[in-house]
Amino acid sequence: MTLLVVGTVAFDTIDTPFGRRERILGGSATFFGFAASYFGELRLMSAVGGDFPSEHVDALRARGIDLTGLQVLPESKTMHWAGNYVGDMNEADTLDFEPNVLDNYTLEVPQRYRDSNYLFLATDHPDTQLQVLEAMTHDPFTVLDTRDVWIDNELDGLKRVLRKVHGLVLNDDEARRLSGERNLVRAGPELRALGPSWVVIKKGEHGSILFSEQGVTALPACPLEVVKDPTGAGDSFAGGLMGYLASTGKRSIEAVKRGMTYGTVTASIAVDDFSVDPFHKVSKQEFQARHDAFLKQIRI
Amino acid sequence: MTLLVVGTVAFDTIDTPFGRRERILGGSATFFGFAASYFGELRLMSAVGGDFPSEHVDALRARGIDLTGLQVLPESKTMHWAGNYVGDMNEADTLDFEPNVLDNYTLEVPQRYRDSNYLFLATDHPDTQLQVLEAMTHDPFTVLDTRDVWIDNELDGLKRVLRKVHGLVLNDDEARRLSGERNLVRAGPELRALGPSWVVIKKGEHGSILFSEQGVTALPACPLEVVKDPTGAGDSFAGGLMGYLASTGKRSIEAVKRGMTYGTVTASIAVDDFSVDPFHKVSKQEFQARHDAFLKQIRI
Repeated sequence: MTLLVVGTVAFDTIDTPFGRRERILGGSATFFGFAASYFGELRLMSAVGGDFPSEHVDALRARGIDLTGLQVLPESKTMHWAGNYVGDMNEADTLDFEPNVLDNYTLEVPQRYRDSNYLFLATDHPDTQLQVLEAMTHDPFTVLDTRDVWIDNELDGLKRVLRKVHGLVLNDDEARRLSGERNLVRAGPELRALGPSWVVIKKGEHGSILFSEQGVTALPACPLEVVKDPTGAGDSFAGGLMGYLASTGKRSIEAVKRGMTYGTVTASIAVDDFSVDPFHKVSKQEFQARHDAFLKQIRI
Repeated sequence: MTLLVVGTVAFDTIDTPFGRRERILGGSATFFGFAASYFGELRLMSAVGGDFPSEHVDALRARGIDLTGLQVLPESKTMHWAGNYVGDMNEADTLDFEPNVLDNYTLEVPQRYRDSNYLFLATDHPDTQLQVLEAMTHDPFTVLDTRDVWIDNELDGLKRVLRKVHGLVLNDDEARRLSGERNLVRAGPELRALGPSWVVIKKGEHGSILFSEQGVTALPACPLEVVKDPTGAGDSFAGGLMGYLASTGKRSIEAVKRGMTYGTVTASIAVDDFSVDPFHKVSKQEFQARHDAFLKQIRI
């Protein structure tokens, strides 16, 4: 089955207790893509500026990622985010955010992408997410993520697109913000009431919770000895989840649960080191071995 | 099999966002006892003052708790702890701690307790814990908890008793303090190196982690819509775990894992309301039903 991700491909500047890295490869679609590519090919839609290095393009392509939908605007600059985890490894302080190219590209879903069976709408503006969804021709199984800025400033648009998706994957802060509920177990059903038949709330090192017609399902994170850079963990979680679903052609809640265990493992790989470096080091076989080990760690 | 708990029976004064309660029944052995009593009878060792109401004694006895080892010192006052959870439901600010009777009772393990097969040493002074352990005649399966104050001030004594126990159950803050490791996955093996063949680190609403010769096992907490008063959750966890082990006569790591799921459920009952009130409301049948529901919530 074909999988399409729509999100950002960007530069990150990151400070963690393990050091500082400037203008390294980042972005929601990037991390999603690297994670999902353990399961097979996928399609990516995003935009970068003329400053985006060709080696990054090559690295994405080498993972089997179709970049037909990666617009390059030579006159623009690539999105840049700077974050600092030095105080708290669970949440970064944003030091700088330059949307750059995101402010001046015109969305156009390539013809060859429109028949995708699985669609992940990462953290774009809700109007962009809706526009992508409406361009699709084969009724894809659609899962959405969002960001604090859209919850705070584009709530009507976000609610419009939420009514049209199958699943919602977001972090605990976003879940509280969007539901108005401080308690996550009460937030989940509120979020389902906005449209998605299931919701996954990601809690970083504390795992994730699924809300569905089957009730609540709780999953721990991988117990990790080192977290060097948490950036991209959430997008990598979504990539593992959606990669599994698309590769198996499944859409059931049982499959979403299994997808969550894969997403937990891809998230644990992402935080091993800066940028997408850890994905280069973990082979598909080692990924499967880590998944087997994780299933053993949660078997009670 | 017979189970003995040694710990505190005390008064708590508690502030949470749900209100304030003054001088309500608390203490580590109390919560442990109420939780473990879902599995059968148990023996309790502690000391209270002349101010301890007879209705509390009756309530403990009504749960099938043998109070032969509950010393009443008429000239003394019962231990009193005052805590405030208003800022953070995961950790209380201690507003007041009056050891009272704990400072002037002389420990004496009743003869009829000495053949106990399972022993839980709650948060007493390490010398008291060691003294109890040495009075036992039937080589009990011994599990220990401790407190920040003993880790900080009685480390040598604590290490002495740790070398003689089978299991250690403590919270994340205590695990970090005792191991000197900030990361819990690295802390676990350090704690096992102190003596216990297995260690459970309790993370409150984020579940618990077991370290054993089988490696790491992670378990979520019960997803809860309301937490009214977290006091006693950790002791109730230990009560559910040890109650299960003693009732089945098991000591294996597989049994400890199953005990953890029971402990998670007894902890979730404890936080439903102030003091031990929730245990009065949850029948043994409902407890089993909650455990079944929890197993379903963690089935992936």
